[in-house]
Amino acid sequence: MFPPKIQKLIDLFSKFPTVGRRTAARFVFYLIKLSKNDFEELLNSITDLRKNIKICSFCFNPFVASTDSAEKLCPICCNPSRDKTLLCVVEKETDLLSIEKTKKYNGLYFVLGGTVSSLKKSDIEKLRIKELKERIKNPSNFGISTNQFQEIILAINPTTEGEATSLYLKRELKPLGIKITCLGRGLPIGGELEYADEETLSSALEGRK
Amino acid sequence: MFPPKIQKLIDLFSKFPTVGRRTAARFVFYLIKLSKNDFEELLNSITDLRKNIKICSFCFNPFVASTDSAEKLCPICCNPSRDKTLLCVVEKETDLLSIEKTKKYNGLYFVLGGTVSSLKKSDIEKLRIKELKERIKNPSNFGISTNQFQEIILAINPTTEGEATSLYLKRELKPLGIKITCLGRGLPIGGELEYADEETLSSALEGRK
Amino acid sequence: MFPPKIQKLIDLFSKFPTVGRRTAARFVFYLIKLSKNDFEELLNSITDLRKNIKICSFCFNPFVASTDSAEKLCPICCNPSRDKTLLCVVEKETDLLSIEKTKKYNGLYFVLGGTVSSLKKSDIEKLRIKELKERIKNPSNFGISTNQFQEIILAINPTTEGEATSLYLKRELKPLGIKITCLGRGLPIGGELEYADEETLSSALEGRK
Amino acid sequence: MFPPKIQKLIDLFSKFPTVGRRTAARFVFYLIKLSKNDFEELLNSITDLRKNIKICSFCFNPFVASTDSAEKLCPICCNPSRDKTLLCVVEKETDLLSIEKTKKYNGLYFVLGGTVSSLKKSDIEKLRIKELKERIKNPSNFGISTNQFQEIILAINPTTEGEATSLYLKRELKPLGIKITCLGRGLPIGGELEYADEETLSSALEGRK
Repeated sequence: MFPPKIQKLIDLFSKFPTVGRRTAARFVFYLIKLSKNDFEELLNSITDLRKNIKICSFCFNPFVASTDSAEKLCPICCNPSRDKTLLCVVEKETDLLSIEKTKKYNGLYFVLGGTVSSLKKSDIEKLRIKELKERIKNPSNFGISTNQFQEIILAINPTTEGEATSLYLKRELKPLGIKITCLGRGLPIGGELEYADEETLSSALEGRK
Repeated sequence: MFPPKIQKLIDLFSKFPTVGRRTAARFVFYLIKLSKNDFEELLNSITDLRKNIKICSFCFNPFVASTDSAEKLCPICCNPSRDKTLLCVVEKETDLLSIEKTKKYNGLYFVLGGTVSSLKKSDIEKLRIKELKERIKNPSNFGISTNQFQEIILAINPTTEGEATSLYLKRELKPLGIKITCLGRGLPIGGELEYADEETLSSALEGRK
Repeated sequence: MFPPKIQKLIDLFSKFPTVGRRTAARFVFYLIKLSKNDFEELLNSITDLRKNIKICSFCFNPFVASTDSAEKLCPICCNPSRDKTLLCVVEKETDLLSIEKTKKYNGLYFVLGGTVSSLKKSDIEKLRIKELKERIKNPSNFGISTNQFQEIILAINPTTEGEATSLYLKRELKPLGIKITCLGRGLPIGGELEYADEETLSSALEGRK
Repeated sequence: MFPPKIQKLIDLFSKFPTVGRRTAARFVFYLIKLSKNDFEELLNSITDLRKNIKICSFCFNPFVASTDSAEKLCPICCNPSRDKTLLCVVEKETDLLSIEKTKKYNGLYFVLGGTVSSLKKSDIEKLRIKELKERIKNPSNFGISTNQFQEIILAINPTTEGEATSLYLKRELKPLGIKITCLGRGLPIGGELEYADEETLSSALEGRK
């Protein structure tokens, strides 16, 4: 239907998170219609970001580096006032941001890079499980000045895939002998008992306070 | 549009929970088309229920009484194996059922009869707050053989209206000197960090285990 | 979970259109809590309707009969100012009402009683196809004073089931030699080209005016 | 919350159609994590498209030009087998594609560039109404070899905004003395009488066939 050059870009936009083919086509038309100035601002902003972004060598969270620096750790991992005995494992970068917004957590993070839906080797190898274990065993090798983590918090979504991932992580991390916790279950704000599943409601009852 | 007799019944069905005018009209046509036998089965079932139903004199939960009995308490309140030091306050009967289904609660209940959206006297008077206080103060007056409740659990929905009601109840019940708890907050099964509000996520973090 | 008398009524309410088990349970609790007066008003309204309702002997639309009458035709079929050369076939009573509301149709109706999803004999026999043919062939046998219908409008939903039913009806009615039409396709108010399927958009183009 | 360089790009992505701030943030993280090869493929595809795309001087639809050509018309406007007496006015490029997919239209197009929600001058001036009138009056000035259009089809969405735009266009184009039509209304595939508004149902009745 589309000329190859347009189709190519639609295909590439379709790989963006949450974007389907219809939306990808609208993106292409949006780009085509952008003024020269707006188009160049976008292009420069994209290339600029890629040039200046670094991935934290400890937690894998991306950060914008100062121009002339050799820094390898993100601002959170560098921050001397963060509690370096707590490590919170999240699926992806935006989950880290969600937790930061609560201002109730002051430890470090580790971005796992996804969840597994099965225990297939190929699925599991996509996650940074080896990297996680290395960092828990020897944080100082990665620039974190702590003797040992006291608690690993698995802040993984309580979805089917997330649960499978948490279970797998627990088994893998257990030999390290560190306390492992998961986020508490319960009714979310705005939730209703009538529509809550039994496990959520059981957790809400047990976690009453 | 409709003849008065039909419109009358549509109006009455529109008062049923979750039923709008369109659905009410479909109910009327459904009734009209029922076979004589099915119609009478429905009518008998309704009248039979009304004749045999009693409201528990302690918890206000309806129950079906044995035909020739003078019993005033529902099977839960009568059950000698239930823990009579715990009282769980719910908005409505179906919430009680949701909690029973979890099989994680073995105390007594009290059906409040709704929530308040404001602190207007007229709103508050619709709830069984006076009745709740009387039962907490003197459970034995209502047939419950307990010395005193050790904990009142406010199992009220964490919606805006429910929160207002919980706050009001806490203030009203505080002088009785009994421990008052609310259901735990957190991520429900299937929930995602990315879409959780900050309060829910904070609770999930604090309630980790 | 529920005592048998309550469960029985939940089962019966679950057969109401659009009602699931959860809603059926809420209906039961609603009935239980109704005041004596409101309960009796509802019961009387239901029994009163059943006593006074008749099914039109021509179109099968229910109507409320005058108390002492022998009338067999509904007000639409009786109305001398309706156009008795047009017959509009609808699936169910509420579809008839939807068309009446437009005030753009002045012919007669026939309530088919449903749609078929397959061409299975058992499915088809549930519809009033035989009755429809009899009425088209000899309207005067059923109290309608017309020589012959000039057009049969199949006002069946353009859903998969409705389409199958329309196709079947067309084949069945064709031998009667009367013009058969279907509702026009096109974009509904509020619709968007971008989300329209190709057949709807084709119809909208062809039907431009 | 974000460093300025990231925030800048989130702001720019938020201007993409259908993209909110949350999705824009996910796009940024997606870009950051792309491999060097994939990132450059995307960047090249974007710049390549911008370099090679032209906007048709008649219909304003973008097209990919042959590298060394001076062509100004898109393939549809150039196509000698298209019917040059029909002009179909659409809001946006993807609507043109939706109509092409039906394979039921063989005339020319004109991309209006949006809809108006009010009759405010500032709103109207964003649309290509002046350009439309010029092309209808003198198609040959814009490279279209036709004496005169016989019909202008307003293929504008039947939404509130679209209706206002159609009304305005009709008034503006009427003095040109050419037949103006709108897309037909009716029930879409899968639609149901019960949920159709009265105007849609009236159109469906009138457009029966």
